[in-house]
Amino acid sequence: DRPLTVIAGPCQLESTDHAQMIAGTMKQACDAAGAQFIFKASYDKANRTSLSGRRGLGLETGLDILAEVRKAIGVPVLTDIHERGQCAPAAAVCDVLQIPAFLCRQTDLLLAAGETGAAINVKKGQFLAPWDMDNVVAKIESTGNTRILLTERGSSFGYNTLVADMRALPRMAQTGYPVVMDATHSVQQPGGQGASSGGQREFAPVMARAAVAVGVAAVFIETHEAPDTAPSDGPNMIPLGEMAALIRTLMDFDRLAKANPITI
Amino acid sequence: DRPLTVIAGPCQLESTDHAQMIAGTMKQACDAAGAQFIFKASYDKANRTSLSGRRGLGLETGLDILAEVRKAIGVPVLTDIHERGQCAPAAAVCDVLQIPAFLCRQTDLLLAAGETGAAINVKKGQFLAPWDMDNVVAKIESTGNTRILLTERGSSFGYNTLVADMRALPRMAQTGYPVVMDATHSVQQPGGQGASSGGQREFAPVMARAAVAVGVAAVFIETHEAPDTAPSDGPNMIPLGEMAALIRTLMDFDRLAKANPITI
Amino acid sequence: DRPLTVIAGPCQLESTDHAQMIAGTMKQACDAAGAQFIFKASYDKANRTSLSGRRGLGLETGLDILAEVRKAIGVPVLTDIHERGQCAPAAAVCDVLQIPAFLCRQTDLLLAAGETGAAINVKKGQFLAPWDMDNVVAKIESTGNTRILLTERGSSFGYNTLVADMRALPRMAQTGYPVVMDATHSVQQPGGQGASSGGQREFAPVMARAAVAVGVAAVFIETHEAPDTAPSDGPNMIPLGEMAALIRTLMDFDRLAKANPITI
Amino acid sequence: DRPLTVIAGPCQLESTDHAQMIAGTMKQACDAAGAQFIFKASYDKANRTSLSGRRGLGLETGLDILAEVRKAIGVPVLTDIHERGQCAPAAAVCDVLQIPAFLCRQTDLLLAAGETGAAINVKKGQFLAPWDMDNVVAKIESTGNTRILLTERGSSFGYNTLVADMRALPRMAQTGYPVVMDATHSVQQPGGQGASSGGQREFAPVMARAAVAVGVAAVFIETHEAPDTAPSDGPNMIPLGEMAALIRTLMDFDRLAKANPITI
Repeated sequence: DRPLTVIAGPCQLESTDHAQMIAGTMKQACDAAGAQFIFKASYDKANRTSLSGRRGLGLETGLDILAEVRKAIGVPVLTDIHERGQCAPAAAVCDVLQIPAFLCRQTDLLLAAGETGAAINVKKGQFLAPWDMDNVVAKIESTGNTRILLTERGSSFGYNTLVADMRALPRMAQTGYPVVMDATHSVQQPGGQGASSGGQREFAPVMARAAVAVGVAAVFIETHEAPDTAPSDGPNMIPLGEMAALIRTLMDFDRLAKANPITI
Repeated sequence: DRPLTVIAGPCQLESTDHAQMIAGTMKQACDAAGAQFIFKASYDKANRTSLSGRRGLGLETGLDILAEVRKAIGVPVLTDIHERGQCAPAAAVCDVLQIPAFLCRQTDLLLAAGETGAAINVKKGQFLAPWDMDNVVAKIESTGNTRILLTERGSSFGYNTLVADMRALPRMAQTGYPVVMDATHSVQQPGGQGASSGGQREFAPVMARAAVAVGVAAVFIETHEAPDTAPSDGPNMIPLGEMAALIRTLMDFDRLAKANPITI
Repeated sequence: DRPLTVIAGPCQLESTDHAQMIAGTMKQACDAAGAQFIFKASYDKANRTSLSGRRGLGLETGLDILAEVRKAIGVPVLTDIHERGQCAPAAAVCDVLQIPAFLCRQTDLLLAAGETGAAINVKKGQFLAPWDMDNVVAKIESTGNTRILLTERGSSFGYNTLVADMRALPRMAQTGYPVVMDATHSVQQPGGQGASSGGQREFAPVMARAAVAVGVAAVFIETHEAPDTAPSDGPNMIPLGEMAALIRTLMDFDRLAKANPITI
Repeated sequence: DRPLTVIAGPCQLESTDHAQMIAGTMKQACDAAGAQFIFKASYDKANRTSLSGRRGLGLETGLDILAEVRKAIGVPVLTDIHERGQCAPAAAVCDVLQIPAFLCRQTDLLLAAGETGAAINVKKGQFLAPWDMDNVVAKIESTGNTRILLTERGSSFGYNTLVADMRALPRMAQTGYPVVMDATHSVQQPGGQGASSGGQREFAPVMARAAVAVGVAAVFIETHEAPDTAPSDGPNMIPLGEMAALIRTLMDFDRLAKANPITI
């Protein structure tokens, strides 16, 4: 099995300089640790808890920045799309299109994304069982696109709380597609701060490490040089300064896991 | 407080005749029981469990049928919309636009719906707490539209199961907006049949009656003359032939509840 | 079907005078409303959240007080037991022995309780499905005792939260035994205040009314003249002064429900 | 930090020979892998799903067998106790007394166990949050006994399903006491086969490995040479023949985890 891929970046794009700084720092950390790296950032936060949450730079500006990161830093880039019409322009720039968890059953969005031919990373909805993703996969496959990734990002567990079920990882792997662990959204507390989501950043490495030990193709981690002042998802992002050490450790666990694969 | 409103109809539109038959039957039953009636049907099932599930007649044909029902039967009509661009055409025909549960945090959709000036019924996401709807309400209010309804349709409870928390009804009522109990989707078993959702039709009257006793503005009930052969949601729809008796009983409970309001 | 029974009393026994005052007040309220009444109180809170919570008066003193209430007020009495050895002495005094929710699968306790011949009220564990109670019932029936009641008191729903599933009521009724809705423990927040449980007293009437509308044999409601200073369960008990009106309303709903029974 | 301890054995005692065979096989596997080993077995299954489930050999016979295993194989032994009176006799034989999950808030049982001076392993109830265990710990500490272990064995997640939250491990470790991952009960499906619990044996290594990677003091694994014919918990026990390889892998993960401790 191939070594772990790290999908990382800030929750939302802020500027070209900011994106390149994070992408550059992360690439260096991943190169040093022997991990693949994909830069992730959103041009639009389309489902903020409240209207007062910052939305982002928008499709056009956002894609421009992603294109620049891709070229300047030399890394594949991923962004999330929210309506059919965004798929083609996003795919013209990005290597991976991401389907947000709330939208993972929207058939038209899945089809439009699949038809671009880009790789498609689907976040499993907080309201879905791992095996429900079989149907999601089949929707995308119907477009002829089999470049699919499936991401665990936690299941609803009472109010304002998520829980990540480690069984979901090998179960989703039964589809034959790479499975990703989203370590930072799994520790979100949706709506937990009233007008915004809370989070338990301290548990993100717990999630990442557990998942890598079980065996995953990739981890998804949002990071920021100063999470507490980030425009979104600050409570659960990992400080950029801690990422190199985290990735180094994850790679050690990844080697051990891939030498001892679990199959169910 | 005004008497109970019944929002009812088939899960998806099948034909003009079919829609008018159900709308006519329901109107008669509601008139007889002293209930308000709003006809509900979908022109597109945009998030079917699997690709093999029937999608519906589409926006144009669907809205034509809804317009005919509205005129021929003389009842307000409600349909659900899935992307921004559908709001204006749907609002040109329908009295109430409905935001599907999975989409209840999609800011652009809420704003586009709100801007039409139509009444907006938002289904609470299976992944949201009742108080999280305060932020959803504020998004719509920002458009100047205060014709809002909030619907309980169950919360995720482990895998492939929903549970309806009766506390959600008075809590959402604290927003000041009418609260609706969706009695048939609350008993859905999402993805429970592998490639489609299961349901426990026999419990739908349990949900409706409990909610009406607590005190709600409306109940939402999907119905079909032959649920087992309906193109979607058969397992949880109530047979049309049972609706008149159910509504009669619900109106008795409604009178008692409204004479003895609960406030929290 | 027989009219609603009200099982009510303070969470724990405090003194003879206190118990008789509450029992007398409740009997009067129930008589006036046409409800049956069973006095409930605990001699020992055997599973307090923390050691600092008050335990109660103990088996001997407690049973003496219950015997006095039974005689002086002329009402059946119910108490909960925690180990086999407590069953016989408690049954010598009490009409109903109650199995606490945490203990509802302890075979020996169920058998010892059943063997007394007293009526047995089993609270469904927060960790059990309604259908799991079929096995609990069979354990008691094996003693030849078929005087069984089954109580819904909420299911675990994430951390420190319960949710009451109204479907549990008709499902448990399929056993053929009377079903009880515990309106005050269903709104507990277990461990929700760190060293003690929180509660949402304001929602207890919501639970009671919903359940009575669905159709139950009895409601279980803890009450106290000054809940905020009660030695246990203050946050979810209903003030004694509000009970007469609540019971009156519940009886109205009960009559309507029993005239229109739901069967599943 | 000390190397991983493995707490393992059959769900229930069957005979002296059987117990010694399993204990001997496990000791050899643990010695070879450098793991500490504690033999676990129950003399009584006091909360079987249904009455038809086999209970076990009883206190006296069971303790005799455990004493023989302890002496013949030279390993510490653990058993679970269900009523106060069982604590002293069990502690006369066993190194560790275990409080079953359903009983983890029964104050008297915790105190009686604590007073024996034996080490006490408390399984976190399926209905408790990790932080609720702080109060459980304080109950035992009040006896002066600070030889405490805390075990994660899954939380209720809808009906007949558990989910293991990896965050519970570092959170419970904040008490300062060793944390144990129960890999086989976490994958139980309580009541999932009607009259008995189901289980997903194939996921037990997933749970064990994830927990060890996060960092735990011990794993708890039930094992049997022929799980499908075992008198209890067959569906979730790991075949004895697979244990040596599993423990070897877990020790590799343990070394890596302990060299890179996570603190929250």
